[in-house]
Amino acid sequence: MGGASHPRDTPGMPSDTPASPNDVAAARLLSARPRLVAVRPAGEVVPGLEPGLILHAAPPQAWEDMSELLRGGMIGAALNEGLAATPEEAASAAAAGSIRFAAAQDHASMAGGVGSITASTPVVVVEDAATGARAFHPVMEGLEGKALVLGMYEPDVLTRLRWMAEELAPALDRALQIVGGIDAHALMAEGLRRGDELHNRNAATSSLLAELLAPGLAQAGLTPAAADRVFSFIATNPQFFVAVSLAACRLACDAADGVPGSSLVTACGANGTEAGVRISGVPGRWFTAPAEVPEGVLFDGFTAADAGRGCGDSLLIECYGLGATVLAAAPALWPVVGVGEARARELFAGARQTALGEHADYRVPLLDDAPAPAGVDARRVLETGRRPIIDIVMVHRELGRGAVGFGLTSPPAACFEQAVAALDATAPD
Amino acid sequence: MGGASHPRDTPGMPSDTPASPNDVAAARLLSARPRLVAVRPAGEVVPGLEPGLILHAAPPQAWEDMSELLRGGMIGAALNEGLAATPEEAASAAAAGSIRFAAAQDHASMAGGVGSITASTPVVVVEDAATGARAFHPVMEGLEGKALVLGMYEPDVLTRLRWMAEELAPALDRALQIVGGIDAHALMAEGLRRGDELHNRNAATSSLLAELLAPGLAQAGLTPAAADRVFSFIATNPQFFVAVSLAACRLACDAADGVPGSSLVTACGANGTEAGVRISGVPGRWFTAPAEVPEGVLFDGFTAADAGRGCGDSLLIECYGLGATVLAAAPALWPVVGVGEARARELFAGARQTALGEHADYRVPLLDDAPAPAGVDARRVLETGRRPIIDIVMVHRELGRGAVGFGLTSPPAACFEQAVAALDATAPD
Repeated sequence: MGGASHPRDTPGMPSDTPASPNDVAAARLLSARPRLVAVRPAGEVVPGLEPGLILHAAPPQAWEDMSELLRGGMIGAALNEGLAATPEEAASAAAAGSIRFAAAQDHASMAGGVGSITASTPVVVVEDAATGARAFHPVMEGLEGKALVLGMYEPDVLTRLRWMAEELAPALDRALQIVGGIDAHALMAEGLRRGDELHNRNAATSSLLAELLAPGLAQAGLTPAAADRVFSFIATNPQFFVAVSLAACRLACDAADGVPGSSLVTACGANGTEAGVRISGVPGRWFTAPAEVPEGVLFDGFTAADAGRGCGDSLLIECYGLGATVLAAAPALWPVVGVGEARARELFAGARQTALGEHADYRVPLLDDAPAPAGVDARRVLETGRRPIIDIVMVHRELGRGAVGFGLTSPPAACFEQAVAALDATAPD
Repeated sequence: MGGASHPRDTPGMPSDTPASPNDVAAARLLSARPRLVAVRPAGEVVPGLEPGLILHAAPPQAWEDMSELLRGGMIGAALNEGLAATPEEAASAAAAGSIRFAAAQDHASMAGGVGSITASTPVVVVEDAATGARAFHPVMEGLEGKALVLGMYEPDVLTRLRWMAEELAPALDRALQIVGGIDAHALMAEGLRRGDELHNRNAATSSLLAELLAPGLAQAGLTPAAADRVFSFIATNPQFFVAVSLAACRLACDAADGVPGSSLVTACGANGTEAGVRISGVPGRWFTAPAEVPEGVLFDGFTAADAGRGCGDSLLIECYGLGATVLAAAPALWPVVGVGEARARELFAGARQTALGEHADYRVPLLDDAPAPAGVDARRVLETGRRPIIDIVMVHRELGRGAVGFGLTSPPAACFEQAVAALDATAPD
């Protein structure tokens, strides 16, 4: 694939010294090989997902402090799960503590946007064949029009969710069992060659996934009408694959978590109020600060003042090395997020400066097949002043208004400062 | 779709004068809207395809003057069609004139590589909804390993062709009838956004086509084993879509043909011996010269001396405005054909200088969504000295050796010189 050479002396990863904590964490991050193996109700597969618990985008947030937008998502989830009969009842139950909340990333899961996971939520199951480890993300509703992932819970949204749980998800699961699972790692590598960056552009990889699911779906015993509904849902949902790429990213970051002394970012998200990161050497602790408002390209009829603070676990995918980090792979997305070629190249070069490794199989054709920078070293973020830059869907700060555009954002520097301080406090001397 | 503006004052297409012959021809070229509507045996649909006739890559070539490679393709076609029982019998029948030959492009068809069309060849049927006009290309065997499209006719090649005719093609046709045809124009526009240039890279567009065929295939009444074979054939054939893009190109060029006074190139090909072009104002006449040997990137184990002269009707696709003309859309193909970003941009800029229009829907994301240059003005080729540049699979000049690499080539200047001279000779004064 081309004759270009790529420097292997990645900052922070010297090759002639004993394996440092960051070497170990990066090696674990890079060793994950995600396979899409199933689509199941979350209650059957997501660890610790008890009845009455709703998982949302990180960091964890008490009901009292949730943004209006996230509250909307949580109310919709409660209605969808049957935890409450009305929005008012859901809000009361949440305030009283009988409906509880946690960060999806603390449960081997990811919740994109204002999304949520409850026991009946159908999730994609991504598995590392070597370790058996698993990670999860809800099957994507799509971002066009109204959707619970945008905090909306009108009757037609809930009707679609019920159809997804009752017909779509079982069909996808049967198809996956028939084809014996799908190599998500290979799909993602090829997706980068087909103009996707695997965060806000997944059009080609979604088609590739559909192509590989098709023989299984054809043999899944669907009625013609059901087959039409399932195929049509996938074909009109260009973000269908993002569920897999986000789960794959969670799988790799969980593999890298808990290495004493490592400053590798292993979780990152924003919940509409706070943004937060976790790092490998201080497992289980979130370091948070007020989330920033993304800046970018607004849809017609909206102004910058309409955009709410960032929300979604998908911030992690750039830390993993995809999304805006490899925006150079996805020229069709550039005008959507307001970036040109020079800026796309700069995003890649900037990410290299804080990365702890390189993805051997995730490469960018436009950049002479350069490997994607893998992982973010929180310490290097402070040293260089370069925070991870994320491309993100912007959601209206008022509940029920939906998406207002696409842009860029970053986790606040304070998250990294606190994380590194906490890591230093764990040092033996 | 970006905020960049694109100059509309295309050379040769002034907007403030009455419609010139080239304006008329370009408008017809650009008006074609190809739909993939069927897959049928060529004998049922291709005009003038009588028994005993074999269509091959243009220009027309007498058996005596055919290259060894093209002869191989023709012998294989005769064996596959049952026109002869042995290669020797086929050669004798060809020499005696009982097997006859013609250029596919003179029959609303395209023959990629060393490919052929006989009565039983399954062809994709591309139709212009507005005019009912049709164009055809054989269902692609694939370019990996042995294939008749590379001039090979071993038993396993013929076995696969039989399977394609008996199981694959009827399944594809049923699927197309069930889904009501597929908008090839929209697929091609989206393919350019997914890293294909629609000549030697069609990976993403093939997946997109598979995705849209899948619901039809699921309802086509295939046995599970047959469904597996059909889906697997498509999923492992990244050039599957090229049959459609080449037929779409033929459809548009036929629509533009026969405009008195127009120097628009409406046919272009090479047959392993000669290369040739037709132009709109001198319909039905080929202007030929010895085909050049492509130059590019050879597979391991081959040298430049192994490559044969160019062969295939696909040279036309660059004249239409796709392929190498929009190589900037397909960075993953650059190292395969030995081109970098600067050269890819230059190919686009160069093609603009000889184009007669712009494709409103075929755009290149990397170039700020600039529209693909549409059509080649043979007169402008002479004035600028810029011949169309084509990316092409290089085939070994010895029969049976298959592909040796990928590179670039151009039709000889003499083709354009003769065409323009003939056009000038038709002028009233």
